[in-house]
Amino acid sequence: MADIVAAGGRAVSVVADATSEADIVALFDQAGGDLELAIYNAGNNTPGKIIDMEAGYFEQSWRVVCFGGFLFGREAVRRMVPKGVGTLLFTGASASLRGRSGFGAFNSAKAGLRTLAQAMAKEYASDGIHVGHVVVDGAIGGEKIRKRFPDAASREDRLISIDGIVDSFVFLHKQPRRAWSFELDVRTSHENW
Amino acid sequence: MADIVAAGGRAVSVVADATSEADIVALFDQAGGDLELAIYNAGNNTPGKIIDMEAGYFEQSWRVVCFGGFLFGREAVRRMVPKGVGTLLFTGASASLRGRSGFGAFNSAKAGLRTLAQAMAKEYASDGIHVGHVVVDGAIGGEKIRKRFPDAASREDRLISIDGIVDSFVFLHKQPRRAWSFELDVRTSHENW
Amino acid sequence: MADIVAAGGRAVSVVADATSEADIVALFDQAGGDLELAIYNAGNNTPGKIIDMEAGYFEQSWRVVCFGGFLFGREAVRRMVPKGVGTLLFTGASASLRGRSGFGAFNSAKAGLRTLAQAMAKEYASDGIHVGHVVVDGAIGGEKIRKRFPDAASREDRLISIDGIVDSFVFLHKQPRRAWSFELDVRTSHENW
Amino acid sequence: MADIVAAGGRAVSVVADATSEADIVALFDQAGGDLELAIYNAGNNTPGKIIDMEAGYFEQSWRVVCFGGFLFGREAVRRMVPKGVGTLLFTGASASLRGRSGFGAFNSAKAGLRTLAQAMAKEYASDGIHVGHVVVDGAIGGEKIRKRFPDAASREDRLISIDGIVDSFVFLHKQPRRAWSFELDVRTSHENW
Repeated sequence: MADIVAAGGRAVSVVADATSEADIVALFDQAGGDLELAIYNAGNNTPGKIIDMEAGYFEQSWRVVCFGGFLFGREAVRRMVPKGVGTLLFTGASASLRGRSGFGAFNSAKAGLRTLAQAMAKEYASDGIHVGHVVVDGAIGGEKIRKRFPDAASREDRLISIDGIVDSFVFLHKQPRRAWSFELDVRTSHENW
Repeated sequence: MADIVAAGGRAVSVVADATSEADIVALFDQAGGDLELAIYNAGNNTPGKIIDMEAGYFEQSWRVVCFGGFLFGREAVRRMVPKGVGTLLFTGASASLRGRSGFGAFNSAKAGLRTLAQAMAKEYASDGIHVGHVVVDGAIGGEKIRKRFPDAASREDRLISIDGIVDSFVFLHKQPRRAWSFELDVRTSHENW
Repeated sequence: MADIVAAGGRAVSVVADATSEADIVALFDQAGGDLELAIYNAGNNTPGKIIDMEAGYFEQSWRVVCFGGFLFGREAVRRMVPKGVGTLLFTGASASLRGRSGFGAFNSAKAGLRTLAQAMAKEYASDGIHVGHVVVDGAIGGEKIRKRFPDAASREDRLISIDGIVDSFVFLHKQPRRAWSFELDVRTSHENW
Repeated sequence: MADIVAAGGRAVSVVADATSEADIVALFDQAGGDLELAIYNAGNNTPGKIIDMEAGYFEQSWRVVCFGGFLFGREAVRRMVPKGVGTLLFTGASASLRGRSGFGAFNSAKAGLRTLAQAMAKEYASDGIHVGHVVVDGAIGGEKIRKRFPDAASREDRLISIDGIVDSFVFLHKQPRRAWSFELDVRTSHENW
């Protein structure tokens, strides 16, 4: 899922194919000219041991998590730089920071996305573009997880609040040019990190 | 400087001797029972090459930056844990993250403070205490710097906004228990990092 | 370039197409059954700003630096795990650790490789496979650079010694199972880091 | 424990009071003029929750682990810089890198030592002094642990080899100026990191 918010707070939430250049371009064209905020949030976890892994599986993990982020980020700055303003945010995970047995494909793709975001933050700061990265450390609460785990409600306090994540995006977006953050982490008070 | 905010937003800003246990205890006693938020912000930069450095200079840098943070943090959690709520924030710098020639004393003290804060974040999360660390990467704008550098106004956009830093403290303080951040960085769009 | 060293110190140095699964498999088949040490060293720097970058360029950077490393690492552990012994090393760069303006594609691919290596180090340690990552921080001395820069000899002390890098590979390979390193950095005394 | 190796490989192993400036100076004076290699290895783990901790305990942890390292490192570079050669190594731990509940004092002191070492590495590289940091991640095998845990022999493979740690010091010491490492980690293949 990738979110784009145009001027006036109108949100365009899209389940485009994040790995298709044409789809990403179309997504931005549809968002229109007053693009303020773009959030790249694509990528499901892709577990698996490397020794057994098909090359196509490793590649697909990268396509959704990292390559899609490149396409999304590039299209965002192409539209934001001429106006000299805009916020581009990427969603990370604890997997972005440290490799872990059984998560090599996801680790690799997420670390690749994070370091791309860091390079872009430095590359477009002088153009007035604020690039940030939010490390979501843990499982996220919400409809989907409640359907999958009927007992999710009883352990709701162990699931990261979606509203809390959205607040962190809003906080980053509202920061003035004299106080930009590149990165923040978000987790519940129950997380063991 | 260390800030304490009691219930109802009443702020107690204090220039106590951060290295004196008695002063820190008195500071918290004065703040009263409804302590919500405590921010440790002490410590001036202490440049100097190690080869020429007096042991007392190295020690004093640690006393103000790190030991004072320990005293402050301990007194804060002693008052917050029984109530099961509270926010404890520490101010870091780029020096907290990487050693640099000419800044060994400051680097050492700031890195010591950051890792203490991280241990405390994990130690008191289950007690409902939110511990955070704000990495202020660059010089801060304000009255003091305007007096020291008469041309500071002309390069104001290269100085981190105090309001922006305060916003980051407020953001961390307002986060719900299901979406806590431990760390965020703050810098101007002009910073070369 | 990828190096494979079979039993008895016989080295197989190969300029295979690191992005071709068939080539990588053939490379390992050719090395034979007594594979002791495999070093993945592929990938030239790929500079460029993201805003101007073709999707194919970004992808090709990842293919050589990271995807090739996955194929190489997978084929290595497939042959080493059944024997319960072997060393698998990856070559990193300062770009593996931090994003930098103008190097987003390379940063992303190198960080992806590093975190993959870290996941593999944890995944195959209990199988007796030592996975390591050498962060080469700076330009490397040698024939190639002497041809490109006729004055390279005069600044030889600013170029990392190839022998020094090889020594670090040998050091990692010889470590006993009770004292394995995952990562070390290598740079000249002139490097500004 | 701090080790000093003078010319010709003559080792001076000393259990000086690492927190006493006079003792450290005397230690180096005793080692004589041909100092090649100095290793700072002092500091036992100091567990404890911050909320219950005496200020003196926190300070003593810092004195042994970090302040002693400053004194030791300063005296080493004072003797090495005039000769333009020498190796100065510090022993770290996983605690140097990440804060952990119950280890705030040790975390703070070890992180302070590591960042001091990094600053010194950059400060004295151009003087020909190689400063390094070895992250020992886990319990170390040897006489002491065998006395404390009679069954230690049966789990010897879970204890880091002292010889392996010494090998890493020797490796760093022998590196040429065109291929210096600042940091490497050492752990057994059984470590869960």
